[in-house]
Amino acid sequence: MTDVAKNGPWGTDRPIGVAVLGMGNVGTEVVRILRDHADELRSRVGAPVLLRGIAVRDSSIDRGVPAELLTTDAHALVARDDVDLVVEVIGGIDPARSLILAALNAGKSVVTANKALLADYTGELAAAAEHHRADLYFEAAVAGAIPVVRPLIQSLSGDRVDRVVGIVNGTTNFILSAMDETGADYSATLAEATSLGYAEADPTADVEGYDAAAKAAILASLAFHTRVTAADVYREGISKITAEDLETASALDCTVKLLAICERVGAGPGEPAREHGGKERVSVRVYPALVPRRHPLAAVSGAFNAVVVEAENAGRLMFYGQGAGGAPTASAVLGDLVMAARNKFFGGRAPGESVYAELPIAPIGDTPTRYHVNLQVEDVPGVLAKVAGEFANHGVSISTVRQEGHGEGARLVVVTHCAMESALADTVAALAEMTSVTSVTSVLRLEGTEE
Amino acid sequence: MTDVAKNGPWGTDRPIGVAVLGMGNVGTEVVRILRDHADELRSRVGAPVLLRGIAVRDSSIDRGVPAELLTTDAHALVARDDVDLVVEVIGGIDPARSLILAALNAGKSVVTANKALLADYTGELAAAAEHHRADLYFEAAVAGAIPVVRPLIQSLSGDRVDRVVGIVNGTTNFILSAMDETGADYSATLAEATSLGYAEADPTADVEGYDAAAKAAILASLAFHTRVTAADVYREGISKITAEDLETASALDCTVKLLAICERVGAGPGEPAREHGGKERVSVRVYPALVPRRHPLAAVSGAFNAVVVEAENAGRLMFYGQGAGGAPTASAVLGDLVMAARNKFFGGRAPGESVYAELPIAPIGDTPTRYHVNLQVEDVPGVLAKVAGEFANHGVSISTVRQEGHGEGARLVVVTHCAMESALADTVAALAEMTSVTSVTSVLRLEGTEE
Repeated sequence: MTDVAKNGPWGTDRPIGVAVLGMGNVGTEVVRILRDHADELRSRVGAPVLLRGIAVRDSSIDRGVPAELLTTDAHALVARDDVDLVVEVIGGIDPARSLILAALNAGKSVVTANKALLADYTGELAAAAEHHRADLYFEAAVAGAIPVVRPLIQSLSGDRVDRVVGIVNGTTNFILSAMDETGADYSATLAEATSLGYAEADPTADVEGYDAAAKAAILASLAFHTRVTAADVYREGISKITAEDLETASALDCTVKLLAICERVGAGPGEPAREHGGKERVSVRVYPALVPRRHPLAAVSGAFNAVVVEAENAGRLMFYGQGAGGAPTASAVLGDLVMAARNKFFGGRAPGESVYAELPIAPIGDTPTRYHVNLQVEDVPGVLAKVAGEFANHGVSISTVRQEGHGEGARLVVVTHCAMESALADTVAALAEMTSVTSVTSVLRLEGTEE
Repeated sequence: MTDVAKNGPWGTDRPIGVAVLGMGNVGTEVVRILRDHADELRSRVGAPVLLRGIAVRDSSIDRGVPAELLTTDAHALVARDDVDLVVEVIGGIDPARSLILAALNAGKSVVTANKALLADYTGELAAAAEHHRADLYFEAAVAGAIPVVRPLIQSLSGDRVDRVVGIVNGTTNFILSAMDETGADYSATLAEATSLGYAEADPTADVEGYDAAAKAAILASLAFHTRVTAADVYREGISKITAEDLETASALDCTVKLLAICERVGAGPGEPAREHGGKERVSVRVYPALVPRRHPLAAVSGAFNAVVVEAENAGRLMFYGQGAGGAPTASAVLGDLVMAARNKFFGGRAPGESVYAELPIAPIGDTPTRYHVNLQVEDVPGVLAKVAGEFANHGVSISTVRQEGHGEGARLVVVTHCAMESALADTVAALAEMTSVTSVTSVLRLEGTEE
């Protein structure tokens, strides 16, 4: 048995009562681990960890747990005197929000995996936790089993994070990886992902980037000590990515990934980011982008997740693992649960919210990026010069331009240097108006390259 | 400014006094960050963080800091009433051990990067911390800036870690990467590493695996809730690795890495590891091994570090980044410092030592591994059968055997299936005695493959 001294108000025999709200994929695994590993959890916490009840929508279904553990009255379960710690794995805003607030207001610890709720309501939840000296943990809300929330809050708390770039949605990464491997188009690949269980019946939240945007808001809040909500995140999904885009990517020795990017940018367009003294802004965005195959994120395939963090002193760090699924997400929930239970036992506290920096959010137009533009053009002399001139008119510097094909198949492939998103978007709009440009066939951003 | 509520006994104006012990690479960076980022640290902690003094061996050297901060009396600095938190970056056992104990015994928080000390004295230090309700943090002791200590202690505290495999020494990884790229031999590459500052004048601690063994002891202790010391770690260095070994590796589409491996093994040789109820043992070892190029650790080159953690529910996680150097290590130290300072301010506590499992250490002979053996043999009929028979005699199953060359250059290249280390070692010893075997030219373990 444990040889740690008992320090808190808790006795070694006084159990820590746990309520689990929701019994989907994650809830089922959390309940399994709580029941199967009760002895190990007791040793790690210092006191028994007892499952008091599970809130479900329909308590008549046989879920392989004693029926007396199930209840449809989640609020009554949270309010029970013998519940010290609440695990919220229902998801969505309501009733998760009111249940978590009820728990925190009663001084109970909360562990949640609810990214949508946290992306918009962390301020309210953190204030309740602070006021009632309660713990709020949410490692499982971003990138499943991969420890990334705790490293950002704790390990990097003495460093200055410049940039966080991640693949944080397994569904879209599965689809893009499959399109890259098979050459199939988006809708066929989505159908396959749905049949394999990698995409939900209504895939909107995943494929349109809402899930990734919620996670980006959480990551940016932690990285930059600034409250960022989902509405602050510029968002494009993957539903317009074509088989031709993947082909284009391959030709450039790249692949296409849906990236969540959080970074410090300058106080104004073109100004440097490394301005101390509150002059900086924060850019948070989610979109599909070309990533060079030699970049570590390009190798993250299937339903895996990875997050790259760049900090002033730590340099570049990468965290990789399973970003979703019942057991991996439950691992993160249980880690938080053990820490929250140990805090009860030893009298510790979870770190609170840190939003002192209050950096403004930069609009997408002020974000520096690179474009890869595919144009169908008239096969006449001077078209390259005209197109190049349009880039110059908007102050966008070209890295490479390549002319391909002849006659009706004549194409220009342009890769720009880094420029402001607004200038790039304006350039593309102007190109579409040019008489010598038949059509703008694809526009993809390029990430993971220098300049 | 911060909007967090003040909760602890600390007022927002009462500073947290810091003593830094040692001003080498890491200490210099810690001092720089403490001084340059004082405002940001204050916002993150909730109270000012003030550098009270720096203990150095020679206070007459100009170190770019005000002379009044420097002292040669480390014990007096630690004992100062206005010192609340001690950063130990001297390294080695003494006087680091007595200084840390003095700080903890006075209820002061300690942040240390001292792997050699922790590998042997964590029990003593953790007991002092526990007794005096003081914090002991040591993220920087393993893998520099890469958060791996905190994820193991906290994030994975509700999971069951089966295996930790890491490249945790930058010097040896630099040398092995360079040998792999250039084909140069060990001594020439070591000389180059020394001239570039990647190896110390006396490289023994790095190249003979002592540094990696200390880190392996720390990782195994955390992963398996069992106190593991450096003496428990089986250790082989890289000084006997030859250019031919790297050639052999390349021919197998492998490279050679110095690995720190911590894993659960069965209660007896050949027994399965997944026996709950205290029957398992722990194997901790450091040695150079063949790693397939497609394995994520094979891509970790130069002075970088990476740690792969395999857990029952989380699955496989990987952490990657800069494992050494002043600024990256200082990043980890400062993260711990901010957490320890926040604990002072908010009344929190660092998680204490968890060694309840007390798993026995398995001797190296009982460890399952695979061998790759190169033999120079007589070019006579039946030699392959004889050699294969010797493996069978020791109960070792062969995966592949290949005969190469003729006459005096005749060679056999044998790759085994997974077997007990003792059986493999006995097989190699018996092969060396065979008359038809001219010499055993190389024996390398093979990691990162199935079976």
